[in-house]
Amino acid sequence: MKKILVLGAGQSSPFLISYLLEHAEANGWFVTVADRDVNFAAKRVAGHPRGDAIALDAKDMAMLTAQIKKSDVVVNMLAPSFQHLVAWECVQHHTHMISASYRDQRVRDLHTDAQRADVLILCECGLDPGIDHMSSMSLISDVRERGGIVEAFLSYGSGIPAPDSLSNPMKYAITWNPRNVVMAAEHGAQYLKSGQIKIVPHWQVFRRSWVVEVEGLGTMEAYPNRDSLSYKRIYGLDNAETMIRGTLRYPGWSETWLQIVRLGLPNEELRIPDLAKRTYAEVLEMFIPISTSGDNLPQRVANHLQISPTGNIMEKLKWLGLFSEEPTGIDGETSAEVLSHLLQKKLALGETERDMVVLVHELEVRYPEDNNRREKVVSTLIEYGEPNRFTAMSKTVGLPAAIAAKLLLTDDLPITGSHIPTHAAIYSAILRELAAAGLEFKKSVSAV
Amino acid sequence: MKKILVLGAGQSSPFLISYLLEHAEANGWFVTVADRDVNFAAKRVAGHPRGDAIALDAKDMAMLTAQIKKSDVVVNMLAPSFQHLVAWECVQHHTHMISASYRDQRVRDLHTDAQRADVLILCECGLDPGIDHMSSMSLISDVRERGGIVEAFLSYGSGIPAPDSLSNPMKYAITWNPRNVVMAAEHGAQYLKSGQIKIVPHWQVFRRSWVVEVEGLGTMEAYPNRDSLSYKRIYGLDNAETMIRGTLRYPGWSETWLQIVRLGLPNEELRIPDLAKRTYAEVLEMFIPISTSGDNLPQRVANHLQISPTGNIMEKLKWLGLFSEEPTGIDGETSAEVLSHLLQKKLALGETERDMVVLVHELEVRYPEDNNRREKVVSTLIEYGEPNRFTAMSKTVGLPAAIAAKLLLTDDLPITGSHIPTHAAIYSAILRELAAAGLEFKKSVSAV
Repeated sequence: MKKILVLGAGQSSPFLISYLLEHAEANGWFVTVADRDVNFAAKRVAGHPRGDAIALDAKDMAMLTAQIKKSDVVVNMLAPSFQHLVAWECVQHHTHMISASYRDQRVRDLHTDAQRADVLILCECGLDPGIDHMSSMSLISDVRERGGIVEAFLSYGSGIPAPDSLSNPMKYAITWNPRNVVMAAEHGAQYLKSGQIKIVPHWQVFRRSWVVEVEGLGTMEAYPNRDSLSYKRIYGLDNAETMIRGTLRYPGWSETWLQIVRLGLPNEELRIPDLAKRTYAEVLEMFIPISTSGDNLPQRVANHLQISPTGNIMEKLKWLGLFSEEPTGIDGETSAEVLSHLLQKKLALGETERDMVVLVHELEVRYPEDNNRREKVVSTLIEYGEPNRFTAMSKTVGLPAAIAAKLLLTDDLPITGSHIPTHAAIYSAILRELAAAGLEFKKSVSAV
Repeated sequence: MKKILVLGAGQSSPFLISYLLEHAEANGWFVTVADRDVNFAAKRVAGHPRGDAIALDAKDMAMLTAQIKKSDVVVNMLAPSFQHLVAWECVQHHTHMISASYRDQRVRDLHTDAQRADVLILCECGLDPGIDHMSSMSLISDVRERGGIVEAFLSYGSGIPAPDSLSNPMKYAITWNPRNVVMAAEHGAQYLKSGQIKIVPHWQVFRRSWVVEVEGLGTMEAYPNRDSLSYKRIYGLDNAETMIRGTLRYPGWSETWLQIVRLGLPNEELRIPDLAKRTYAEVLEMFIPISTSGDNLPQRVANHLQISPTGNIMEKLKWLGLFSEEPTGIDGETSAEVLSHLLQKKLALGETERDMVVLVHELEVRYPEDNNRREKVVSTLIEYGEPNRFTAMSKTVGLPAAIAAKLLLTDDLPITGSHIPTHAAIYSAILRELAAAGLEFKKSVSAV
C-alpha cells in the first residue's frame, strides 16, 4: 500500500484530501492527514477507512521526521516557513514532496540532493502559483509552435468573493491561509515593463497598483506579485520586454492595505507580550510614535499616516476592528497574527456566499515570418465555489497537487530533482486531468 | 582528540580561530575551519599542525551533515539564514553548537530536542549579542543583591572606526559581515519607553534615531536594535518601564541609511538578472518609478525620496558609489549584495586605521528599602583594534565563542538545550575569562 502524508488540514486542503481519499481504494493508497489540531484533520478524513488523522506540530522535528520516513509522497500544505525543512527531510528519507507554495532559493538549492535521492520535490503546484504556470507554459508553447515571439507577458491571479457575494466593505474573503494575505509582498516586488526592470519595496507595493479590465468581471485593480522577472527565464521568454505577474483585487483594497503596511502591522518577527489580554486599539497604538499629536487614536493614526481621519480608508480600518477596545484574545504573539485573526473573523464568506478564482493571461505576440503581424492572446479562467461544499480556492489549489501525487504514485511523473510545474512532462499531464475535471481556460485572440 | 568545526572564516573569525589553535595542543583539540573559499580558511589556519582548512558550501547539505557528524563542537559563524539548519543537524548528530548570531524562534524551538540529544545550542555568544547579555546580567544581578529594582534599562552596542580613524564621510567601517549592516532592522524594531511598547517598521527605524552622550567619545546617535522587549523577560526585568537596546553610530549614519531603506535597496529576495554586467546607476534606476520626472538620475532619486538633490545625504549616496556608471562586477544576484559590495569596498579600514567596539549599559535603579533612593549605573566597555593584526570586532566577537567552546570541551558548561548566555552558569565563567583577557567594563554610579 502506498502511503500519502498530507501536512496541514487548513482552508486550502479539503478538496485535496477528499480527492485523495476518493481515489485511495482504487489505487491502493493510505492517506494520513496531519494537523496541529487533530480535530481539524479528523473532520477532513471523516472516518474514511483509507484515511487517518493525526496531531502533528511541525515544530516537533522528531515526529515530523518519523512521519515523513513512513511515507511515499508528502503533500505539504504547511506555511511557507516550513517548506525548506520538510523538503530537506523528504530528500533525506527518499520521499517525494508536493507543495502549493512558492519555492524559495533554499528549496531550489536542493535540486542535486533530490536527484541523488531519486525523489521529486515539486513546488508551486497549486493555483497561483501552480495552474498559472501550467496554463502559461501551454499558451507560450502553442504560440512558439506557430512561429510567434512573445513580446509582452502579463498574468493575473486572484481568489476573491464572487460578484454576487460582496457583503463586506473591503470586498475580500479569506479562503486560504490569512497569513499569506497579511504578509503579501513582504519582500517587495519586481517586474519588467517596456524593457525596464522595476523593483518596489514592501511599503510601496500597494501604492503602485493599476487598473485591469477583466472580461466578464469589469474594472479590477492589480498590484505587482513578488518576483515576476524570475519567470522570464523559467518560461523561456527571452524576447519579452514586459513581464508582469499581478494580484487582482476589487478596487480599493490596495489603498487600504498600503496604510496597514505603512503602519508596520504585517510583522511576524517582533513578539508582543501578553497579546491575548491587550485590546486591538492598544496594539495599534504601539505602531505610532509617542509624539504624534491629536485627540484620539483614529486622529493620531491619521496624522501619523497623513491620511484623512474621516475618509474611506479610515472607515475600512475601523470596520476591520483595528480600533476596537476589545481584548484580542488571540493565541499568538505578533501583530501579523492579530491581522490574520481580524481578517479571518471579519472577512469570512457568508453561509450562502461563494468565492471565485480568477486567472488571466495576456500575451502580446509578434510573428516575424508573417510580416511581423501582431496579436494579443487573452486566456481566462473563472471558477466559482459551491457554498457550504468546496471553495473555488480549495478546488483549484488542491486539485493540481492531488493530481501530481496520483501521477507520481502511478509512475507517470518520471522526473526527479527540485522543480516547479513548467516542464512539459509535468504540466501536460496535469492540465489534461484538470480539463477533465472541468477546469479549462477560455482563450480569445485579437489583432493589434 | 576532541574535534572543533569552525563554519565560516570571514571577518569575525580570525581571533576565534587563532585562540582555538593556540589552545589546541594543551587541550587535545583538532580544529577544522570550513569556508566556501578554502583559501580564506587556509589563511586563518596558516599551516598549524592542529588545524585543517576545508572548502564547504553550506548549501551542500550532504557535506555539511558529514562534517557536523564528525565534530564534538561546531562554532557556527555562518550567516543568520543558516543558523536553524546547522542547529538542527547538530541536534540530530549530538554535536554542540555555539554561534555569535541572534537566536531565531526556530532555534529556540529546538530546546527540547537539544535536551533529548544532550547537547548545548548556544546562540548570541559574541559581542552584541553576546558580551552585552553577559555584562547586563552581571550588573542586574549585582543591583538585585543590593535590594535594587531596575526601572529603566538602556543598552548600546557598536563596532565603528576609532575616533582617530575617521577617513570616510560615512564615518563607518566594515569589520564584520557587511550583510548584517545592509539588512539591519529588516524586521523593524520594538522597545519599551516609559511603559509604552513602541514598534517601528523597517522603513522608519532609521528615522527614529536619538542622541546619546558616551563618556570619552562625545555625542553619538542610536537607532533601536531589533526586539529590545524580548530581553525584558530574559533579563528578569519585570519592573522596568523602559527597555531599549540601541545601535550606536557617529551622527549622520541614520539619516543616510534611511534613504537607502526607503529606496528598497536592502533586499535579498529579489534576484536581478545579469547583475555583474549592470552599472550601479542602472541598478539604482530600478528602484525609482518610471514616471518620476527630472533631468538626471540623482535629480530623479532626490525627487522620488523628496530629499535635497544637493544636500549632505545625496553627497554620501554619491560617494558610496550608487550612481557610478561602472559595472558592478559582483558575484551575486541581489541589490543587498550590491550594497554589501559597495560597503566592503568603500568602507574598509585603512592600513593604519583601527576599529573600536563600544558597549554601554545604563540602568536606573530604585532601592525601596533605602527610602526609594535612586541611582544611575553606567557601565562602559571601549576596546580598540590593533592595526594589521586583529580588529576589536574580531576579538570581542570571537573570544566569547572560543571560551564557550573551551568550557564545553572541558565539561565546565554543564547545561543542555537551546540557550543564550544569560544563565549564571554560562556568563560567570565566560566573563571571568574575558576579564583575564583584558576585556573589562568601567562602571560609574551616580545619584539621580
